[in-house]
Amino acid sequence: MKIQILKNIIDENDVIAKKINEKLNEFNIFCMNFMSSPGAGKTEIITQLIEKYYNKKRIGVIEGDVSTTIDAEKLAKHKIPVIQINTDIFGGGCHLSASLIEQALEKFDLSKLDILIIENIGNLICPGEYNLGEHKKIVVISLTEGVEKPLKYPLLFRRADAVLINKVDLEPYLDTKAKDVIKNIRTINSKVQIFSLSAKTGEGIDNFIDWINNEI
Amino acid sequence: MKIQILKNIIDENDVIAKKINEKLNEFNIFCMNFMSSPGAGKTEIITQLIEKYYNKKRIGVIEGDVSTTIDAEKLAKHKIPVIQINTDIFGGGCHLSASLIEQALEKFDLSKLDILIIENIGNLICPGEYNLGEHKKIVVISLTEGVEKPLKYPLLFRRADAVLINKVDLEPYLDTKAKDVIKNIRTINSKVQIFSLSAKTGEGIDNFIDWINNEI
Repeated sequence: MKIQILKNIIDENDVIAKKINEKLNEFNIFCMNFMSSPGAGKTEIITQLIEKYYNKKRIGVIEGDVSTTIDAEKLAKHKIPVIQINTDIFGGGCHLSASLIEQALEKFDLSKLDILIIENIGNLICPGEYNLGEHKKIVVISLTEGVEKPLKYPLLFRRADAVLINKVDLEPYLDTKAKDVIKNIRTINSKVQIFSLSAKTGEGIDNFIDWINNEI
Repeated sequence: MKIQILKNIIDENDVIAKKINEKLNEFNIFCMNFMSSPGAGKTEIITQLIEKYYNKKRIGVIEGDVSTTIDAEKLAKHKIPVIQINTDIFGGGCHLSASLIEQALEKFDLSKLDILIIENIGNLICPGEYNLGEHKKIVVISLTEGVEKPLKYPLLFRRADAVLINKVDLEPYLDTKAKDVIKNIRTINSKVQIFSLSAKTGEGIDNFIDWINNEI
């Protein structure tokens, strides 16, 4: 009975996600859905993208958080359009849904965007179940989270188009090595694109940007 | 309507949690529910507790994961009773519920336990909603997750009895400082016990153990 309810919600979500995807295509907007554990560095990576694309591509961000506008404020400093979704006013939701994205989209002037970035709620489980109409699902994992996360939370890694291994600048101080994380990602998803990078130092960001440009 | 369904589930969960708590008290077992983001270091901290309590207290662990038995196998090496709950067989659940704990409890010989540790699913949102009959809720945050997590995921921090700031051995290599994390925890929960520690080096574990002994 509970599974039935969940299935209906996800079916309904997919209908709205399809509409969103059509709208984005109509306006020629490339959309990425960033997902990760809390604190893996999504906002810092998005900040790097905004800086690298400055004067090249017009970026908008939908910022998902349970509470606060901390990340949206950080990003809005770069003078780009940012819409904050706080899920606590919807009962503390642990993921973004297509209907929330549909509402947020109405607040953008879509004719003025080339790239739409969705920063999902920090959660390695629930966001994986909900398509948001995006073109690519980007999963961020921090090297500090250990090597086993892809095995223990397989759904997100299975559905990812690209996995970013962030905070590789800390590798000398950790037992966790990027090559072991890569091996476990490959166990779950043999075809996914993997980029090792550091949003702090900027190392590896250009490789990810080359991939985005190619996908656009 | 959806909120109504959720409310009923949580009410029903609380009824079972109360029964679990009574059973634990009957057998004089002290129970802690460990919650955190994925990769914050719950398993490593629990391993430290098992080693420190060796020959002093009899510990059992209920290990919650979406998938795999990796953590349970690590803990079982210490020759303590460990029961694994994999929530993917219940539809990929993002938290443990009291009914899952009730089922797991049946597999232990409760007369042979002093401490029961529940390692919840790695998720900083949903586990906060579900009481499991535990005596204390322990939230683990890794210093690598940044300073803002308590503000952005307030529910868990508000309900915590103790917060453990793990991986403080990495502080020299991070912009994040433990004192700033503590400040943000205090904003959400002025009374909670806070321990800075490193499961890797063992630093600070004894202070947490002193607190546990006092609470028992």
